[in-house]
Amino acid sequence: MPRDSSHIPAPLSPLPGATGVMCPGVMCPGVVAFAGSGPGDPDLLTLKVLKALQEADVILFDRLVSAEIMALAHDGAILENVGKEGFGPSMAQEDICARLVHHARKGRKVLRLKSGDPSLFGRLDEELTACETADVGTVILPGITAASAAVAAIGQSLTQRGRNSSVRFLTGHDMKGFADHDWAQLARPGEVAAVYMGKKSARFVQGRMLMHGADRATPVTVVENASRADQRVLATTLDQLPADLAAADFGGPALTFLGLAPRQHAAALPHLRDQTQMELA
Amino acid sequence: MPRDSSHIPAPLSPLPGATGVMCPGVMCPGVVAFAGSGPGDPDLLTLKVLKALQEADVILFDRLVSAEIMALAHDGAILENVGKEGFGPSMAQEDICARLVHHARKGRKVLRLKSGDPSLFGRLDEELTACETADVGTVILPGITAASAAVAAIGQSLTQRGRNSSVRFLTGHDMKGFADHDWAQLARPGEVAAVYMGKKSARFVQGRMLMHGADRATPVTVVENASRADQRVLATTLDQLPADLAAADFGGPALTFLGLAPRQHAAALPHLRDQTQMELA
Repeated sequence: MPRDSSHIPAPLSPLPGATGVMCPGVMCPGVVAFAGSGPGDPDLLTLKVLKALQEADVILFDRLVSAEIMALAHDGAILENVGKEGFGPSMAQEDICARLVHHARKGRKVLRLKSGDPSLFGRLDEELTACETADVGTVILPGITAASAAVAAIGQSLTQRGRNSSVRFLTGHDMKGFADHDWAQLARPGEVAAVYMGKKSARFVQGRMLMHGADRATPVTVVENASRADQRVLATTLDQLPADLAAADFGGPALTFLGLAPRQHAAALPHLRDQTQMELA
Repeated sequence: MPRDSSHIPAPLSPLPGATGVMCPGVMCPGVVAFAGSGPGDPDLLTLKVLKALQEADVILFDRLVSAEIMALAHDGAILENVGKEGFGPSMAQEDICARLVHHARKGRKVLRLKSGDPSLFGRLDEELTACETADVGTVILPGITAASAAVAAIGQSLTQRGRNSSVRFLTGHDMKGFADHDWAQLARPGEVAAVYMGKKSARFVQGRMLMHGADRATPVTVVENASRADQRVLATTLDQLPADLAAADFGGPALTFLGLAPRQHAAALPHLRDQTQMELA
């Protein structure tokens, strides 16, 4: 079996959760592993997270972790749906933290499973802090983030020589706090950004970007349920984003790319609008 | 076996590489799969890429794809090291493109394996275009990018409520083309950026950020060989970055976080410098 590098202390900087605890597998008793399940397709799990699912004594999982993935947990595991995301009944953050510490103190192998990558918009820090405060060890197991799966689905790169040498990942919830130079930057030709949870903020984003000089024809692509069987792709423009998004009526999690069209559209931008209409029809 | 969602056409937007070709596995004859191997730890492979490794007739791989990962290919596969990255002998981009098309036209299952995630600084577009021009189908299989693995290794999040609601991924090679407002943004307190291939540009970046008002005490963390057995972490400040980086003498691929300290340092920033010196001693 390949080594578990999470538990190998780095020579220049020994870290919490890597304090010399060696376990035969991925999970250790009394330690909380914060793991990313990826965007939904079980095939996008990493081998390490699959092993964690099969070793864990208890799994606290978010609403967006797919049922197909939870089916990979071992039969004896305690499964706790803490449904933090979305609109259904959800457990308060402090209660989730208390559950993590409770299980770890019982000496259990605790898996905290979040959709995507826990380090991106995963509200990881509150839970890490709670574990540290309780002297409970932690380890982080990365996952495929929605932007990676969504951009693969539209046949594109997040970065491209001659177009954009950087990409921004941001959340629609917090864009109302953006400064003017954030908007000026997003509005530039060739700029690419991946907006998580951006459905509700679409009209606001459109307004600010146009105010800062963005071209109305800037390509915008929204990918709903990235990597899942019910994945849908909406190719539109900044001009038509709010109207097309309303017409598409996406109910699932959506990832919005500002400045990026699906690959077959990229070569035919002047006709983008007609093509999109056809697809929506 | 879980479905292969890459081949399920999205209702709103049928895509190249997803044109109704259904294969029992991940790979299809005559189609090129562009896949990410992650940063090096074989346990960070996705299940999908592991299946691709085991199904591929031919694998064209980059220098940074680890030997442990290549050992997972099936015995009969043709392995071609196209060593595009780094300092050794490398194949010209047009030759790589020609090899991909050559193998696909022979009806082989062709895997183009890149380290990390192919959609981030993977020079994916030239190869996709070559396949399209030759009427060769393509599919993209995402991988764990170095920033995800590196931030997990230092116990941090890329985004955090109250600190930064967005994160930038950029490459050190291209930062000399940055506009003033890019630097102004990177220089702001709380801003977080992940710089790929940023070793050579460290002094330049430091100069520009200080010129745009960044605090000399801004935390900077460099992770060499993220996720691998020889991973090393350098925790420093913007002020000391060039000197500490020179002293650390990193030979492997490195990921630089601007605005982020390893988690046990984050709570004790005034003492960061002393602690770093101790670790380097």
